[in-house]
Amino acid sequence: MKKLESIKEFDGYLERYSHYSECCQCEMVFSIYLPKQAVQEKVPALYWLSGLTCSDDNFRVKAGAQRYASEQGIALIIPDTSPRGEGVMDFPERYDLGIAAGFYVNATESPWDKNYQMYSYIVEELPALIEEHFPVVAGVKSISGHSMGGHGALICALKNPSAYCSVSAFSPICHPTQVPWGKDALGAYLGNDMEKWQQYDAVNLVQNGHKVETILVDQGTADEFLSDQLKPEALIEACEQQKINLNFRMQEGYDHSYHFISSFIGEHIAYHSNFLKKEMGD
Amino acid sequence: MKKLESIKEFDGYLERYSHYSECCQCEMVFSIYLPKQAVQEKVPALYWLSGLTCSDDNFRVKAGAQRYASEQGIALIIPDTSPRGEGVMDFPERYDLGIAAGFYVNATESPWDKNYQMYSYIVEELPALIEEHFPVVAGVKSISGHSMGGHGALICALKNPSAYCSVSAFSPICHPTQVPWGKDALGAYLGNDMEKWQQYDAVNLVQNGHKVETILVDQGTADEFLSDQLKPEALIEACEQQKINLNFRMQEGYDHSYHFISSFIGEHIAYHSNFLKKEMGD
Repeated sequence: MKKLESIKEFDGYLERYSHYSECCQCEMVFSIYLPKQAVQEKVPALYWLSGLTCSDDNFRVKAGAQRYASEQGIALIIPDTSPRGEGVMDFPERYDLGIAAGFYVNATESPWDKNYQMYSYIVEELPALIEEHFPVVAGVKSISGHSMGGHGALICALKNPSAYCSVSAFSPICHPTQVPWGKDALGAYLGNDMEKWQQYDAVNLVQNGHKVETILVDQGTADEFLSDQLKPEALIEACEQQKINLNFRMQEGYDHSYHFISSFIGEHIAYHSNFLKKEMGD
Repeated sequence: MKKLESIKEFDGYLERYSHYSECCQCEMVFSIYLPKQAVQEKVPALYWLSGLTCSDDNFRVKAGAQRYASEQGIALIIPDTSPRGEGVMDFPERYDLGIAAGFYVNATESPWDKNYQMYSYIVEELPALIEEHFPVVAGVKSISGHSMGGHGALICALKNPSAYCSVSAFSPICHPTQVPWGKDALGAYLGNDMEKWQQYDAVNLVQNGHKVETILVDQGTADEFLSDQLKPEALIEACEQQKINLNFRMQEGYDHSYHFISSFIGEHIAYHSNFLKKEMGD
């Protein structure tokens, strides 16, 4: 693992590392924010999954989350959104397929399957690496994300409810098997078998009995992708049927941008902090 | 004036406008954040001047200031750092001269003098435009900035002490007449007469009797430009000699980036808020 950068912020350090990923068979970059509390003791961690076109940089620069992580004494773990670099398959003319569009799945179709193993990377390889090398409490983690990353956070938690203390999302792609972004990506990465797609679709997972205790979602009403790509109504309905406590908040007038995330990230971090600290207290 | 964008953030609106500037003889773009309080009543304004290579976008995306402006009920006015666009003189191979490097002076040398009139734009034209079109309290404004913009904030306040309720700066170029960035820019824009340079140098202005009541400056000790370009020791000495209350805070371990600004912008906005509200109460 190689340290690329260390920047002091809110009394803690925002750092960036690269490491060779066995899952993705390439160098991967992530950022981590360690609040000052981590100098004295291990802290719990919030994983943040970013959306299409993003790297680890967008969230750390635009969301204003470090302030709240510093206040709450929580580490932020900010992975990349796909494998990238020389030799990694891409579709440069499309922003929603290939690099920066990994969709947090394990690809099964050639040539994507060689590197696009983001689901295992996020759920297994990266937490193991983080817990080995940084002052974070092993196993005490939560997950959140935005858009494609909101989808990622939902499926990671629904498929591994005991691995995450809590889950939240901003403007998630709730039902990727039914929207253009998701159909194209899942088709490319997983082939034509729709049953495989459903294993990475939050709505289908809930319908098929996957459960978490509670979910927090914020969604802006002025989000330009709301009706075509996000399909929150399907998630609301599925959670109602399966009696999952979904706190779905329609936020009047907010769009799909980081200005929306910045407005509510403090509430999300406080939300996760409650669950993380309860887990540590147990 | 043309509205380019309006984005909801922290219950207020972050907007971007373009307008024809008589000072700069070209279209100029600025951003304004109007907190929700501005729907009910006029609010005071904080002008933010950005540094080299920036436009109005950097501060609004990276500093996290809107949260505090929302809490305090203060408008943020975020101008561009130079004229720009077709026909505007530039030096594309240099980041510290021409576009995004206006240095907040009125250029006197051809060809710069045609458009590079940033001092008058910031001090006169833009506030008049803002106070005519937006719900801000006329004449109740403060000013802050970063690096080249920290220099800009200091000189605007020192040259117009009654126009600004308070002034602060992050990592300002304190003594531009004596450092590489400043010498090159002032030489290009103002020619060889060093007396003209000194009219835009905070240290020289203080030495020559320009006064403000108090100044707040934050400076990181890990700032890569500290020793070569910023020269805060000269400002500290000049303020001591002239009995100006300079609260100069060396912040251990912080660099020159927006991660530094984000860590302390809340304290700066609270600082300005005190002065602005005192002025409104009088």
